Amino acid sequence: MASTAGKVIKCKAAVAWEAGKPLVIEEVEVAPPQAMEVRIKILYTALCHTDVFFWEAKGQNPVFPRIFGHEAGGIVESVGEGVTEFAPGDHVLPVFTGECKECTHCKSEESNMCDLLRINTDRGVMIGDGQSRFSINGKPIFHFVGTSTFSEYTVIHVGCVVKINPEAPLDKVCILSCGISTGLGAILNVAKPPKGSTVAIFGLGAVGLAAAEGARLAGASRIIGVDLNPNRFELARKFGCTEFVNPKDHTKPVQEVLAEMTNGGVDRSVECTGNINAMIQAFECVHDGWGVAVLVGVPNKDAEFKTHPMNFLNERTLKGTFFGNYKPRTDLPSVVEKYMTGVSSYLVS
Amino acid sequence: MASTAGKVIKCKAAVAWEAGKPLVIEEVEVAPPQAMEVRIKILYTALCHTDVFFWEAKGQNPVFPRIFGHEAGGIVESVGEGVTEFAPGDHVLPVFTGECKECTHCKSEESNMCDLLRINTDRGVMIGDGQSRFSINGKPIFHFVGTSTFSEYTVIHVGCVVKINPEAPLDKVCILSCGISTGLGAILNVAKPPKGSTVAIFGLGAVGLAAAEGARLAGASRIIGVDLNPNRFELARKFGCTEFVNPKDHTKPVQEVLAEMTNGGVDRSVECTGNINAMIQAFECVHDGWGVAVLVGVPNKDAEFKTHPMNFLNERTLKGTFFGNYKPRTDLPSVVEKYMTGVSSYLVS
Ligand SMILES: NC(=O)c1ccc[n+]([C@@H]2O[C@H](COP(=O)([O-])OP(=O)(O)OC[C@H]3O[C@@H](n4cnc5c(N)ncnc54)[C@H](O)[C@@H]3O)[C@@H](O)[C@H]2O)c1
Ligand SMILES: NC(=O)c1ccc[n+]([C@@H]2O[C@H](COP(=O)([O-])OP(=O)(O)OC[C@H]3O[C@@H](n4cnc5c(N)ncnc54)[C@H](O)[C@@H]3O)[C@@H](O)[C@H]2O)c1
Ligand SMILES: [Zn+2]
Ligand SMILES: [Zn+2]
Ligand SMILES: [Zn+2]
Ligand SMILES: [Zn+2]
Repeated sequence: MASTAGKVIKCKAAVAWEAGKPLVIEEVEVAPPQAMEVRIKILYTALCHTDVFFWEAKGQNPVFPRIFGHEAGGIVESVGEGVTEFAPGDHVLPVFTGECKECTHCKSEESNMCDLLRINTDRGVMIGDGQSRFSINGKPIFHFVGTSTFSEYTVIHVGCVVKINPEAPLDKVCILSCGISTGLGAILNVAKPPKGSTVAIFGLGAVGLAAAEGARLAGASRIIGVDLNPNRFELARKFGCTEFVNPKDHTKPVQEVLAEMTNGGVDRSVECTGNINAMIQAFECVHDGWGVAVLVGVPNKDAEFKTHPMNFLNERTLKGTFFGNYKPRTDLPSVVEKYMTGVSSYLVS
Repeated sequence: MASTAGKVIKCKAAVAWEAGKPLVIEEVEVAPPQAMEVRIKILYTALCHTDVFFWEAKGQNPVFPRIFGHEAGGIVESVGEGVTEFAPGDHVLPVFTGECKECTHCKSEESNMCDLLRINTDRGVMIGDGQSRFSINGKPIFHFVGTSTFSEYTVIHVGCVVKINPEAPLDKVCILSCGISTGLGAILNVAKPPKGSTVAIFGLGAVGLAAAEGARLAGASRIIGVDLNPNRFELARKFGCTEFVNPKDHTKPVQEVLAEMTNGGVDRSVECTGNINAMIQAFECVHDGWGVAVLVGVPNKDAEFKTHPMNFLNERTLKGTFFGNYKPRTDLPSVVEKYMTGVSSYLVS
């Protein structure tokens, strides 16, 4: 074990002292991992909208001071009591949602929404003892979604850590711990477009681009990107989009535009915007008889999904997914492998 | 061929002269079947809510005078040009929705919503030539959903006729052409409850009872019947329901009542009421992670399905079905066989 094992580590972290105020690089103390916890040296971390959203803390329970960050890659520094799956030196990805492998969700083949370790944006402490592992001069600094990767060292529940191939470039695969897997899994695990089918992707941010790439991998023949921002279209073409629709270019509802382009509707659609109108459009644009729409974006608290029930009775299906239905510990290692074999535009570009 | 082949047949029919006015038994003339049509001697016919709904013709395009009826059993009297699949004497069920076997829906494994012969409640004439085959003193009497079984003889497009085992008792299996197959198929083809799962059935009319029976056949271990009318419960027990909830007995929303009874929600639910509140409840009562809800009831024109999109993002699925996703010509013969082997409480009772 490293010489730091069992000791408090002093390191740098970006601390959010207050909602919406600039992060401050501080020296923090990181306590050793307790039972079923792992302490990780973070080598790379990305910034995601979710960090920004909870840093702004509009209309939420604000939990401050806090260390944000959840898309990252690192190396295990030491492990707590009872941890047998990890050892110092393992390459790992922290994930904001976990897998205890014991609850009904973890035991269900269909769900990845672990009862114990499912994302909880209100909790700022470890599950084991209700305490934070971060402090400055004895004052606790709170965790964020169990990961807090804007720190050189962080402590994470073993169920939220994924051991990956040490050959994988951590600077690249770190982004697989959030939006990319979400978009990819939404297509491959949930929408499941048949070969040769037509797919619409609403929203061409990181999540939507990964969904487009998933549709290409699945063999979709038409991949229609829908975004209000046409600057997205050029990049989206590299990820597999074959056609584009900007709803602003049309007076008709985009559902009708898509139905006309596709002889009645697309076979699959995936919504990656978080916008409630796009959610409704993504559902209503799928073909009757067999169309499947998948919601991915995180909506506002007061959003309401509304549609005429005949749209369902005409044999359309609507599903939602969380983290692309991937079970983090079970499934992410193979997503990393898939990306290492070069199928990803993200990691090649 | 029968001696009546090629000739006009005079027979009795129950004619609806005006919306909401009593049907009148009249002598009608039934023209011979044209290309791709079959003339059928109706031996048994049932009355379904859909007949009543279009007879009342509230807020619809009224098409009168008209011969209603769509749940029936009969024997082929003669066939029109190009019909090779049927011969006089065949035992058949007319079906309000057809299967042309040529369109994209018929060719899709997933859909039964034939582009050509899908239910059309506004059309009162034959598809082939836009004429009616019924008349009284030369004045046309219109058809209803392509079946018009309230007549001793009727003419039906070949795509809306199902040849069945001649051993099947027509007086009993005639009800398989509408609500029973709808409820059974909603469970067996769409909701697909795993063995040992928990199922909620909203609405315990003919459709809901068939759904309950389907859930029992599928091996569900708890089948919770939900109806505002507690008189339904005794019969529903015979069809497989193991527990009952009357929403009127509770101050809490029925979704919550069901979640408490089932540790978070049912695995599958099927809505067989046509009531929009029941549709929303049936969706919201399924378990997150894996729950699937299926809508079957026909809603009001101005009904609106409303829910918070997080209910989808938490990995619930909502589907609708039309005629239980059965393709009439391809699938109904085996439904008849299933009922003949005695698994049906309907036909045994
Ligand atoms: N379910 C999950 O597990 C999960 C994980 C990560 C992200 N997300 C969510 O996925 C969504 C997308 O994330 P991202 O990082 O790609 O976001 P992003 O902001 O980078 O991209 C969103 C895109 O959607 C477009 N857009 C917005 N409204 C639109 C509309 N009405 N019609 C068409 N296009 C519209 C924007 O122009 C933008 O290009 C967000 O809501 C995010 O919270 C969900
Ligand atoms: N999709 C199809 O192909 C298809 C085919 C046939 C019938 N249907 C539809 O299925 C539905 C059921 O048909 P049926 O013949 O069984 O009808 P039915 O009237 O015999 O039974 C409906 C039952 O639902 C109950 N109910 C009504 N509102 C309710 C509520 N809010 N909560 C709980 N229970 C409620 C009623 O008390 C009744 O027992 C109808 O809407 C019918 O139009 C659909
Ligand atoms: Zn993220
Ligand atoms: Zn779990
Ligand atoms: Zn009917
Ligand atoms: Zn067809």
